[in-house]
Amino acid sequence: MSSSLKMRAVIKPSAAPGLEMALVDLPTIGPADVLVKVRAASICGTDLHIYNWDEWAQGRIRPPLIVGHEFCGDVVAVGSEVHSHQGGDYISAESHIVCGTCAYCRTGRGHLCPNTEIIGVDRNGAWADYVAIPAVNAWHNPPEIPPHIATLEENFGNAVHTAFAVDLRSKKVLVTGCGPVGVMAIAVARAIGARSIIATDISDYRLALAKKMGADHVINALHQDVVAEILAVTDGEGVDAWLEMAGAPSAIAQGFKALKFGGHVALLGIPSKPMTFDLADWVIFKGATVHGIVGRRLWETWFQMQGLLRSGVVDLEQIVTHTFPLAQFEDAVKAMASGESGKIVLIP
Amino acid sequence: MSSSLKMRAVIKPSAAPGLEMALVDLPTIGPADVLVKVRAASICGTDLHIYNWDEWAQGRIRPPLIVGHEFCGDVVAVGSEVHSHQGGDYISAESHIVCGTCAYCRTGRGHLCPNTEIIGVDRNGAWADYVAIPAVNAWHNPPEIPPHIATLEENFGNAVHTAFAVDLRSKKVLVTGCGPVGVMAIAVARAIGARSIIATDISDYRLALAKKMGADHVINALHQDVVAEILAVTDGEGVDAWLEMAGAPSAIAQGFKALKFGGHVALLGIPSKPMTFDLADWVIFKGATVHGIVGRRLWETWFQMQGLLRSGVVDLEQIVTHTFPLAQFEDAVKAMASGESGKIVLIP
Amino acid sequence: MSSSLKMRAVIKPSAAPGLEMALVDLPTIGPADVLVKVRAASICGTDLHIYNWDEWAQGRIRPPLIVGHEFCGDVVAVGSEVHSHQGGDYISAESHIVCGTCAYCRTGRGHLCPNTEIIGVDRNGAWADYVAIPAVNAWHNPPEIPPHIATLEENFGNAVHTAFAVDLRSKKVLVTGCGPVGVMAIAVARAIGARSIIATDISDYRLALAKKMGADHVINALHQDVVAEILAVTDGEGVDAWLEMAGAPSAIAQGFKALKFGGHVALLGIPSKPMTFDLADWVIFKGATVHGIVGRRLWETWFQMQGLLRSGVVDLEQIVTHTFPLAQFEDAVKAMASGESGKIVLIP
Amino acid sequence: MSSSLKMRAVIKPSAAPGLEMALVDLPTIGPADVLVKVRAASICGTDLHIYNWDEWAQGRIRPPLIVGHEFCGDVVAVGSEVHSHQGGDYISAESHIVCGTCAYCRTGRGHLCPNTEIIGVDRNGAWADYVAIPAVNAWHNPPEIPPHIATLEENFGNAVHTAFAVDLRSKKVLVTGCGPVGVMAIAVARAIGARSIIATDISDYRLALAKKMGADHVINALHQDVVAEILAVTDGEGVDAWLEMAGAPSAIAQGFKALKFGGHVALLGIPSKPMTFDLADWVIFKGATVHGIVGRRLWETWFQMQGLLRSGVVDLEQIVTHTFPLAQFEDAVKAMASGESGKIVLIP
Repeated sequence: MSSSLKMRAVIKPSAAPGLEMALVDLPTIGPADVLVKVRAASICGTDLHIYNWDEWAQGRIRPPLIVGHEFCGDVVAVGSEVHSHQGGDYISAESHIVCGTCAYCRTGRGHLCPNTEIIGVDRNGAWADYVAIPAVNAWHNPPEIPPHIATLEENFGNAVHTAFAVDLRSKKVLVTGCGPVGVMAIAVARAIGARSIIATDISDYRLALAKKMGADHVINALHQDVVAEILAVTDGEGVDAWLEMAGAPSAIAQGFKALKFGGHVALLGIPSKPMTFDLADWVIFKGATVHGIVGRRLWETWFQMQGLLRSGVVDLEQIVTHTFPLAQFEDAVKAMASGESGKIVLIP
Repeated sequence: MSSSLKMRAVIKPSAAPGLEMALVDLPTIGPADVLVKVRAASICGTDLHIYNWDEWAQGRIRPPLIVGHEFCGDVVAVGSEVHSHQGGDYISAESHIVCGTCAYCRTGRGHLCPNTEIIGVDRNGAWADYVAIPAVNAWHNPPEIPPHIATLEENFGNAVHTAFAVDLRSKKVLVTGCGPVGVMAIAVARAIGARSIIATDISDYRLALAKKMGADHVINALHQDVVAEILAVTDGEGVDAWLEMAGAPSAIAQGFKALKFGGHVALLGIPSKPMTFDLADWVIFKGATVHGIVGRRLWETWFQMQGLLRSGVVDLEQIVTHTFPLAQFEDAVKAMASGESGKIVLIP
Repeated sequence: MSSSLKMRAVIKPSAAPGLEMALVDLPTIGPADVLVKVRAASICGTDLHIYNWDEWAQGRIRPPLIVGHEFCGDVVAVGSEVHSHQGGDYISAESHIVCGTCAYCRTGRGHLCPNTEIIGVDRNGAWADYVAIPAVNAWHNPPEIPPHIATLEENFGNAVHTAFAVDLRSKKVLVTGCGPVGVMAIAVARAIGARSIIATDISDYRLALAKKMGADHVINALHQDVVAEILAVTDGEGVDAWLEMAGAPSAIAQGFKALKFGGHVALLGIPSKPMTFDLADWVIFKGATVHGIVGRRLWETWFQMQGLLRSGVVDLEQIVTHTFPLAQFEDAVKAMASGESGKIVLIP
Repeated sequence: MSSSLKMRAVIKPSAAPGLEMALVDLPTIGPADVLVKVRAASICGTDLHIYNWDEWAQGRIRPPLIVGHEFCGDVVAVGSEVHSHQGGDYISAESHIVCGTCAYCRTGRGHLCPNTEIIGVDRNGAWADYVAIPAVNAWHNPPEIPPHIATLEENFGNAVHTAFAVDLRSKKVLVTGCGPVGVMAIAVARAIGARSIIATDISDYRLALAKKMGADHVINALHQDVVAEILAVTDGEGVDAWLEMAGAPSAIAQGFKALKFGGHVALLGIPSKPMTFDLADWVIFKGATVHGIVGRRLWETWFQMQGLLRSGVVDLEQIVTHTFPLAQFEDAVKAMASGESGKIVLIP
């Protein structure tokens, strides 16, 4: 594939806020890679951090960089050693490229690989016409999953990993934070037998989406006493299980207070800095178990996702609230930043 | 309570086949017991064994005995030391009376108590106007569960115990045996996120019921090649998880053959005698895990059931196919023996 | 048993620092209780809090109260309903009296019972000639365990509960805090296959005891860089598992920093107040699992203890560093407060 | 590396009983392989099957074949794509070469890979001066483990996989079958906190070895009533956990009868054909959990082994009962067949 071929890509050109559309060389592929023609991409909070060039982005991103790590597309070329894929394969991407040789990778815990490289963060991403990725990161999709759903799988995987980390069967479940991952987790909790689902957020828009995806009770943390409301709808007991998707210290405090003795927590939301934490009352005296969740289990989570989506047990259609052509990425970022969106899809 | 009061009861009068309706003394209660006015009872395979006076029954039952261990009703009197219940309480019964002091009972495994006494088997049961049971065995029902459902809880607990013994989330699940417990397990598997459910039986009537309760594929083992059919509907893979409810050697062989490597099995159906078993190919080389299931976890299964029923995640309405007045117990036994029934309810 | 009989007891007479020896009435027993002649008692940090009349004690203790919750002795009388014990039985006591009827107690999680009453804290204790306790709380000891070891079982149970909460087999294990429970946990970790054990404390006395009980590496947190030392002795990897027994924010921070990705933590030490906690780096990005530990599992932990002690897999002899007659309880408290002690035993 | 170079190798020359020493070409290596100069090899039951040319061997082995799958040695050449190893590395081999791409391999369960190829069974093995294997199968040894121990790791891995499959901490453990894997499992059970270990076999030689490796009680199944003896040494309770290493139907029946309610079993021994099995009494009514064990967990078991060996928690020195030069392989096979051996090591 000649390097004189050009494609469109959304790039972070330099160490400053903003992104721009550029014409760049088509990526080249190594012997173990596949070249993917992007059919759909989507936006994640991380993309917003990169756009805004916040502290985290300044410390991690090395411009120029093509952004975007949630996507699906068609394989158009494969490296010389690739036997698992061929031209025409319809794939979604696992964004975490792991080393395969560390102790974590060798014991089924590749999601903890310290050598992880993230597509669209540490190397060129997929808000572009084409992207090159290792074949091992290209997950085969069945044809019946449309591109605007297939692009969500990476992010859906976070929701599945979190919701599968604790036993939700016949349990009263709290989900704090109703951004896209939160509402996807609600759909999963519903599908796997939660007895009741309580959702909190500070946006009525998001809480309405949470209801659509299966929440039984929604609480606006700006206007309601979260802990009191939870106790009111749980016969004063609190919740058995809690999926934390907000990262806000207030939500974290509320969740621990509303958790029953012996309860289980899965934490995915990232607090922006250390917080005041009542280890004695929240965790120890309570006999609580707290699971830190990062990424997706490689590749167990993907198999779980496939089952949930193919069987129709989980339907993600309603969480795609906006679709834009790739060229209108600025509008997409704006919609994302507004807080009044579910998932936003970009079509190259 | 004077012993001159009489009530109707279905009894095994002597060591011979059959049951009869009799007028007997009202049961007396000890200090830790409750007296329950029966609102509904239901029939289990065990009752049929007792009716038929088969080998098992001859070895276990000591006539005269009032039969019946599945029931619900209202508490009408409580023993002097009972603080947990009062007159008017609407309860279902756990039929296993355990000792509370053995190592099993003291470590949360009371379902394995070697000193278990079963209501309607080892002591007088509930096919009667009244029955006396330990207060600890009387599970509080919410008023919205109607008696013809509440009487099923004991048996539903077997289904929940079995289905919760393995991870069914996003899994391809086989259920062999579509008697009442089998179809209830199908409903549970559906509710807790099975990706697909395959059911086998030798009765088209039961397979139709299995479909209604949520099976995706049904296979009649009399007329179809079970293993080939399972492979056909699982992309040649077989199933991840299997709930065995038939107790038939042929079903057990088919299940193990259709099980994927690393699969999990929960066995509830009781083979009537030792069988030829291919431990090497079925279990060891396959890396399978096999869980023997007996009774219900005390009281974890009851809490799980309560959650499934109260939330409406599982609806048992359709499996009640027949209802008779208690006086027509012979018709009920006949319907049960026909194989063309779901659960059969008796109303005193 | 006439109430005119008197016995010696160490009591908190009023709401102020200190304890005193007094002559008090022999306890009476209810129908489900046993009266125990105390053979040995021991001191716990809680006793020191009560002695010092700190904030916690002021909020919880209602004088007058006989203190002491770690003890063993001989049953000398049993209530009318007690069939599990008889005069002459040699027992140790579970100090947590639980209700037996709440959802926790009914599902094998009695250690989380919200109605727990603690001997020597919420009701009269065992620094006395006699103590009355529910029969169910009196654990049968084999005769070969001497009283100065049997009295440790309650506290040893905390160590076993903590060490059994995570998988230590073939793992690099950190124990922060080498007070009595910490060093007992070290002995347990050694017995159940830890690959290496690293212990931290601020007392060289305690670290020496930790070495005796099986620690491979000891680190004095006052004088050494704990995290650097841990990395140095673990090939730069950190530890797989961590048992937190100190409750000090500095120890907690060090432990999380030294924990490997995917590591497991059991927290028993109680921080005296909320602390600054880096949930993102310590738990979430690390994919860590954190288990809050309270009390002992009823009665699973006791069975586990029995196995460890009877088989000789764990030997607690060396951690008993001081023995005093009960009358010298002031000396015992002083020794305990010095920090230069293991377990301290009182003989009535 | 020129193919004119020759080396000694023990081969199965044709489809008939026996093995012979031959001069063969040095193996060539592919880009992902390493060439290993063998320092020590050892004998496994599988080698005996191949020698004897039994039914299994006739169905599986395609002569001519160099046999031997347990070995250690030094890397002397690496393929062009190998970055994980270099000349001089001291390695042991995982004998199962798995595909890395199937669903099992991709979810941390490579030991169940249906595409497994076994060194010395499906491709040339290590009873030779040199052997070529994929680099990924070459486990780095620390220098302090001597070759006669390092060669045992593959087989030791079976013992570790089995013993780690169930919780042995503070448990009464039965090991049926005291061949090499059985006695290694005894050593592991001892190291990870078994309360007591009961071992059965039909050879006094092997039972003596079992005692040396840590068994508390040994029972000769030829001369003693196994179940009665087990009950006698367990206060009539039976065992909590059972590791089956014999594959004999009689041992399997005894183990299930001696297992406590709720017990856990790990089955590694392979019955030579289907057997009569009492599923009702052995598994279902007992609430037992049965784990089929195959191979070693890739690579979790290897990390576990490394920890046990490097820390000295398990010492395998005593189970090496014979050492022969490779040229005397016939003597080694004879010693193995006698039943009066632990592990037998061959030195090229």
